[in-house]
Amino acid sequence: MLDLADNRASEFSDEGWLKSAAERARIANQMLSRSSDASRNAALNAVAANLRRREAQILAANEQDVLAFRGSLAFRDRLLLDSERVEAMARGLESVAALPDPLNRTLDSWSRPNGLQISRITVPIGVIAMIYESRPNVGVDAAGLCLKSGNSILLRGGSESYATSVAIHDAISGGLKEAGMPPAAVQMAPSASRAIVAAMLEATGQIDLLIPRGGKSLVERVQREARVPVLSHAEGICHTYIDEAADFEMALDILINAKLRRPGICSATETLLIDTAVAAQWLPRIIERLGTLGCAFRGDARACEAVSSLPRASEDDFRREWHDAVLSVAVVDGVEGAISHVNRFGSSHTDAIVTGDPAAAQRFLAEVNSAVALWNASTQFGDGGEFGFGAEIGISTGRLHARGPIGTEQLTTFRYNVIGTGQVRE
Amino acid sequence: MLDLADNRASEFSDEGWLKSAAERARIANQMLSRSSDASRNAALNAVAANLRRREAQILAANEQDVLAFRGSLAFRDRLLLDSERVEAMARGLESVAALPDPLNRTLDSWSRPNGLQISRITVPIGVIAMIYESRPNVGVDAAGLCLKSGNSILLRGGSESYATSVAIHDAISGGLKEAGMPPAAVQMAPSASRAIVAAMLEATGQIDLLIPRGGKSLVERVQREARVPVLSHAEGICHTYIDEAADFEMALDILINAKLRRPGICSATETLLIDTAVAAQWLPRIIERLGTLGCAFRGDARACEAVSSLPRASEDDFRREWHDAVLSVAVVDGVEGAISHVNRFGSSHTDAIVTGDPAAAQRFLAEVNSAVALWNASTQFGDGGEFGFGAEIGISTGRLHARGPIGTEQLTTFRYNVIGTGQVRE
Repeated sequence: MLDLADNRASEFSDEGWLKSAAERARIANQMLSRSSDASRNAALNAVAANLRRREAQILAANEQDVLAFRGSLAFRDRLLLDSERVEAMARGLESVAALPDPLNRTLDSWSRPNGLQISRITVPIGVIAMIYESRPNVGVDAAGLCLKSGNSILLRGGSESYATSVAIHDAISGGLKEAGMPPAAVQMAPSASRAIVAAMLEATGQIDLLIPRGGKSLVERVQREARVPVLSHAEGICHTYIDEAADFEMALDILINAKLRRPGICSATETLLIDTAVAAQWLPRIIERLGTLGCAFRGDARACEAVSSLPRASEDDFRREWHDAVLSVAVVDGVEGAISHVNRFGSSHTDAIVTGDPAAAQRFLAEVNSAVALWNASTQFGDGGEFGFGAEIGISTGRLHARGPIGTEQLTTFRYNVIGTGQVRE
Repeated sequence: MLDLADNRASEFSDEGWLKSAAERARIANQMLSRSSDASRNAALNAVAANLRRREAQILAANEQDVLAFRGSLAFRDRLLLDSERVEAMARGLESVAALPDPLNRTLDSWSRPNGLQISRITVPIGVIAMIYESRPNVGVDAAGLCLKSGNSILLRGGSESYATSVAIHDAISGGLKEAGMPPAAVQMAPSASRAIVAAMLEATGQIDLLIPRGGKSLVERVQREARVPVLSHAEGICHTYIDEAADFEMALDILINAKLRRPGICSATETLLIDTAVAAQWLPRIIERLGTLGCAFRGDARACEAVSSLPRASEDDFRREWHDAVLSVAVVDGVEGAISHVNRFGSSHTDAIVTGDPAAAQRFLAEVNSAVALWNASTQFGDGGEFGFGAEIGISTGRLHARGPIGTEQLTTFRYNVIGTGQVRE
């Protein structure tokens, strides 16, 4: 059953799967949207218990995937599970269960001169689909956030982690059944075929929201071809700007953390912007310190003037997500120069200013086109867990519906309830 | 200048217009997003004054459009302006100016255990484009809502009303200049060519949101082909359900208003659902009363049993927006039957229940998939003006970003501001 060949269906049957899965997901979503928060939490906790109970099966399936994997060590690490990572998935679900109920919240209410009472109430989005690549925990986090927020989810994992994803999905289904929740709320595609991706892109009316999680080429394809609404981020080109009014030691600590804590995550800083007023004085010390920590650099003309040993950056380097211990460096003319660099080269993700000047900070926060703008903190805080969302299903760099980390609240939409006493319109 | 032939550019130059217009709109949006509410209100009031002052030119341009028009009387009426309609446009802008500032509102704020202060602040969406058909006031309402909410807008009006739209746009530009606001905030396409529509559909990164306002074929084309985010409604298949616990006279008044007040608007009721418990008793009286008011009917099998003279409805009739004094009628099994009919045949727009039973009403409000669900009121209240939004740029039947009437608040998105004191991530 875990042999990919057995599960790989023809294009026809993959599309057939999607249609029937989406119909079952719709019915499950209607049940979930009427369910109590307590019963959804019980299901989350039951799934967590099932993951722990089936750890041996999950790790055996993962071993199969890892043995078959022929790729880089970094990718292999993303694929690899151990006891600790299974426990982390289970604990993640329990922390989502502990969050407040995102449904049936009254966002706003008012009455009209004619006596109509209008209120705006949160409801689930409906049927969500996610296409993801190697990391199997992404599917569990997504399923947990969707369950909590009353949405159904259709998961299409990557071929490298397919056996693991199936074993994890068995644990999720088992937990849902035990808790009396419809297993159709979380469904796993019968294969990692491209036909299922194609069918998801076209599933207008069946899928309310599609979330791609993976490499740039996957995300760009989904953005280009999807006929259904999409929430995604293609890139995280994040900046840390060090202003002349910064505390130098604070700036250095923040930059080291923002770049080097985990250089591969999307909220890692890719570009250092430094105020021209302090570049000659501070940049050599910054380069030296980060260099000793293993960081490499690419500088613009003015940065190379301040530190002559810096390799020269091309303009394209400032649009690059390095995914590595490499930092682009540009010297800018104060906060105004920093804002215009961020808005020209950034990806509307997460950008930080380090300064002791509140006016400069307020201007930066107000004028950068970033989903998350930080003052005196590391860009690596641009993350759903760090925001207190329990987990995240992704980070949106689009401008509609939700920006930044997407947690349970962002997986809801709303309905207007209008209560009258027989009013008719004049 | 108002001759269409003179303005109709080649495809190349129309696309060229869009690119440069979008760039200027982006800069104008940055200026607007930093402007005070008072200055945006002053601009709205200056535009209103300009519309009044240029009434003669606007009506002369409109006469040119009307004389050239070769279509139905109903469409001709939508195209036709008079003094009163120009005054209504001006007053609409003034009422939008009087609304609260939708920008820089703190939607939520909290602090994290590490001391980070996170807040979610409203900001404009950015550059909005609207494709609309004959009614010239649609462009003014849209421009007013966008100005108030700090967005720039690119307008592509229909060829039938092109001269009128140009004259109105001249008045808008004049008002913006007088108020010291960038005229690039509201731009009018140089022609009503299809090439501009095609270019708008593809303008990823240039247009943040596209709103089609017009017939079903326009909206469906935009939904099918757009590569940019879209807010739209294709149809308003609205229902009024009369429950056995309804007050009969209230139900009749509401139904008459919901169907016949203006049968052509999108929140007009298309289908009457009546509880099987009262169908035999009430349906003949309802049919008789609405019949005397000029309404025609199509009934399902059970409705035709209750009133043998009713013409029989096909299943497709229940998916039809009549745009006329025609009512589809179905007998349903209580509130549960009503909900399942609405969710099967409706368009997630506006649906009403008439009942004296709070439990039935609450169930209907909670379970119909409608953007607006009403209890004991006419579906024709599903409208931005009636909600107190001043005007509306459209009504969304999608589930993401905004549902129902789209006013100034729905034309904003948000940014997270995160304020720290040097925090780094562990």
